[in-house]
Amino acid sequence: MPSAIPPARPGVLAALFDALPADCIRLGAEIGVRHHTDWTGMDPQCPLALLLPRSTEQVSTMLRICHAHSQPVVAQGGLTGLVGGAHARAHEIALSLERMDAIDPVDTSGGTVCVQAGAVLQAVQQAAEAAGFVCGLDIGARGSCTIGGNIATNAGGNRVIRYGMARDNVLGLQAVLADGTVVGSLNKLVKNNSGYDLKHLFIGSEGTLGVVTQAVLRLHPQSCSTQCAFLALPGLDAALQVLRDARASLGGTLSAFEVMWPSFYAFVTGLPGMDRPLAGTHGLYLLIEANGSDAGGDAGRFEAMLSRWLEQGLIVDACIAQSLADTARFWALRDAVAEFPVHLPKRSTFDVSFPLDGMAQAVHAIDAEAEAAWPGCTRLYFGHLGDNNLHIVIDVPATQGRHAPEIEAIVYRAVGALQGAVSAEHGIGRKKRQHLSVSRTEAEIATMRQLKAALDPRGILNPDKVL
Amino acid sequence: MPSAIPPARPGVLAALFDALPADCIRLGAEIGVRHHTDWTGMDPQCPLALLLPRSTEQVSTMLRICHAHSQPVVAQGGLTGLVGGAHARAHEIALSLERMDAIDPVDTSGGTVCVQAGAVLQAVQQAAEAAGFVCGLDIGARGSCTIGGNIATNAGGNRVIRYGMARDNVLGLQAVLADGTVVGSLNKLVKNNSGYDLKHLFIGSEGTLGVVTQAVLRLHPQSCSTQCAFLALPGLDAALQVLRDARASLGGTLSAFEVMWPSFYAFVTGLPGMDRPLAGTHGLYLLIEANGSDAGGDAGRFEAMLSRWLEQGLIVDACIAQSLADTARFWALRDAVAEFPVHLPKRSTFDVSFPLDGMAQAVHAIDAEAEAAWPGCTRLYFGHLGDNNLHIVIDVPATQGRHAPEIEAIVYRAVGALQGAVSAEHGIGRKKRQHLSVSRTEAEIATMRQLKAALDPRGILNPDKVL
Repeated sequence: MPSAIPPARPGVLAALFDALPADCIRLGAEIGVRHHTDWTGMDPQCPLALLLPRSTEQVSTMLRICHAHSQPVVAQGGLTGLVGGAHARAHEIALSLERMDAIDPVDTSGGTVCVQAGAVLQAVQQAAEAAGFVCGLDIGARGSCTIGGNIATNAGGNRVIRYGMARDNVLGLQAVLADGTVVGSLNKLVKNNSGYDLKHLFIGSEGTLGVVTQAVLRLHPQSCSTQCAFLALPGLDAALQVLRDARASLGGTLSAFEVMWPSFYAFVTGLPGMDRPLAGTHGLYLLIEANGSDAGGDAGRFEAMLSRWLEQGLIVDACIAQSLADTARFWALRDAVAEFPVHLPKRSTFDVSFPLDGMAQAVHAIDAEAEAAWPGCTRLYFGHLGDNNLHIVIDVPATQGRHAPEIEAIVYRAVGALQGAVSAEHGIGRKKRQHLSVSRTEAEIATMRQLKAALDPRGILNPDKVL
Repeated sequence: MPSAIPPARPGVLAALFDALPADCIRLGAEIGVRHHTDWTGMDPQCPLALLLPRSTEQVSTMLRICHAHSQPVVAQGGLTGLVGGAHARAHEIALSLERMDAIDPVDTSGGTVCVQAGAVLQAVQQAAEAAGFVCGLDIGARGSCTIGGNIATNAGGNRVIRYGMARDNVLGLQAVLADGTVVGSLNKLVKNNSGYDLKHLFIGSEGTLGVVTQAVLRLHPQSCSTQCAFLALPGLDAALQVLRDARASLGGTLSAFEVMWPSFYAFVTGLPGMDRPLAGTHGLYLLIEANGSDAGGDAGRFEAMLSRWLEQGLIVDACIAQSLADTARFWALRDAVAEFPVHLPKRSTFDVSFPLDGMAQAVHAIDAEAEAAWPGCTRLYFGHLGDNNLHIVIDVPATQGRHAPEIEAIVYRAVGALQGAVSAEHGIGRKKRQHLSVSRTEAEIATMRQLKAALDPRGILNPDKVL
């Protein structure tokens, strides 16, 4: 996998020191260990240097010099990625946007905010809320991840069913190309068909086509009511009908539709301190949430909808949150995923997606193959059903050994057979690179390479990632 | 403007006849005159040939041959564009997707439909409705325009405030590159971060980077109630407050927010057969519509919202539609634009956008300059305010002559000064090409050219358009 790039490019460090303030460049032990890897945890290495720009102009200078020396550069945000996309190797320079964390005042007439790439998501959420808006983006790593990383990876998360992915929340952005050219515009306009929409090149390309330095985010109105329930359903067919009806009945206020298969429910409700909102064993569990704007009427409509589902046999049991504490209890089951590293340290985890009409078949195929290969192994399925997103945890008992490649083969075989995606929301990075062709055709990958060659002809930006 | 391409490429027609069924190629008088120009009406010419493929494979063969002969090709959909984007010149080959109009059965579990590029928008809307969904796209030309054209131009239209632009309604697409390579995937997944999202390259690039042959559209749930009102407001500041409050109060069901300046209201209510819903003269007029899912409660909430605005002085008069006939009466005022060619045959029209916090200043600057240049000339302003989209009609009395370039200069000067866009929803095509730099930087345009060169190295796709 590592390319044949020599471990140091002659003269690049000297040129950087010449052109930039000394405190923008760190070497060796001055580089914090957190820059040695990301949350993926793979293969920690101290990069050749760490660059800490304070402005787009400095990013431009840095890339211009690295380009001139064919020096590989890895852009880093909050380092919370799960596919090794921000991992810099010993011969690569890490470029962290952490000092560029300014958040402009919210434009309340247009409902937009302009932020620098290094702004932490949670700080942007707070700025939006203080101005009476909601930031559409929300992911578990909100306290550490940065907007630049969210954009570079087209982050998904908890509110996609309501507000879309990162891509859908970006109106404009500024990026620096490999050769230092600053492109993009801080567009605040919803409608702008003036030439190619370049921002989409940079969103989701994981720092391989340019380094995002600033962005204009579209904000959303705040809601005033929250309805939440934990439901038991006979199975996935019922869940799909419930999903469609919820979308129609809630008039666009559906904000979460988190499905959990019975094995997941049994596992998390068995963890210490966890609640068990519904007794018995059912075909499927669903955490549903809506955020509405009719404080007087929303609760009644929500309950009427659940009653209708109960009558129709689409749900078989329900627990409606009567308080924020109830809502938190329900979410704790979903968020127990964060404890899996402790309880299932050797698990294989997957972030994939399937068309809804192939979801049941996908789970069935994977489950049958895993059981056949490793009888009794743990298989947990859960996900954002409305977004096609399935998360899978497979853990083979220690006595049966580690089988990560075989487990991957089972999951990605189903992805390929059922027109799924090898990455739903985490991206490709380095970890899923070898599986990209499961979801993309040769012609598509060749076109991606053409774009990469056109915008980064020396291949200095995040080499050996995605492609 | 026309490049130095010779009027016929030796051998290209012979090669096309060799490789394709004869009825896929028309020449000279066999080419219907509707293919000589588009709704822009500029410069009618009979193209060198008209190609009528029946499949993506045939499109691929056609482009492969044209690429080999460096033969320029202009993709055509419904020919309803307003910037000359589908106009083919005498030395260019027109490639019409009209025979590729298949609409697959709607996937009701995922809420998606796969259609060929030549499907007429209205037919797609009807297919969606028959399956219990709504197609997010709607534009005036719905009975003639095609999905391929909608996607190539990132069409906007009447429902953008609710469902976004064409781009926001496309989940996957298939396109043919200049050399005949078929790329893209008919992705049905909301979440798919498996490599670069190539579809955004083709959406809105007006047939200059590839020819879209098929697409998967995301559909939306049907609503069950319509609330509509025609309002008078003191001015734009109030309208911005009303917009923000409507977005929050209506919980995502706001579906139209059409603003009309007083000169527009006076002009259209003076046309024969037109109604005048509100008496007196006011600072601004607003057609507002919401489509909700609470048949019992929506009307009451809508009226309560209007009462609140009246109390707050944000609106000064209101006429609430009591029937579909009332709603149609209100929309007739907005749609009177279609009659402008009759009543103002020599008018200059503009489709531009401005940040909301610069909209008032933009209208004021344009209006003052136009009045100073041509005292008493007609200036009509109206638009989809929530989308930043302003439409402008300026008509100089016949006695003062025609001044299209001077009028353009006034409007685009304001666009440049206030960070607007020279094209909000119609695209650049050939008509606005020379003004692209008003809205885009040199570096952006250079990057667009790099992309064009990478994907269409011989420049055969829609030459002299956009760039």
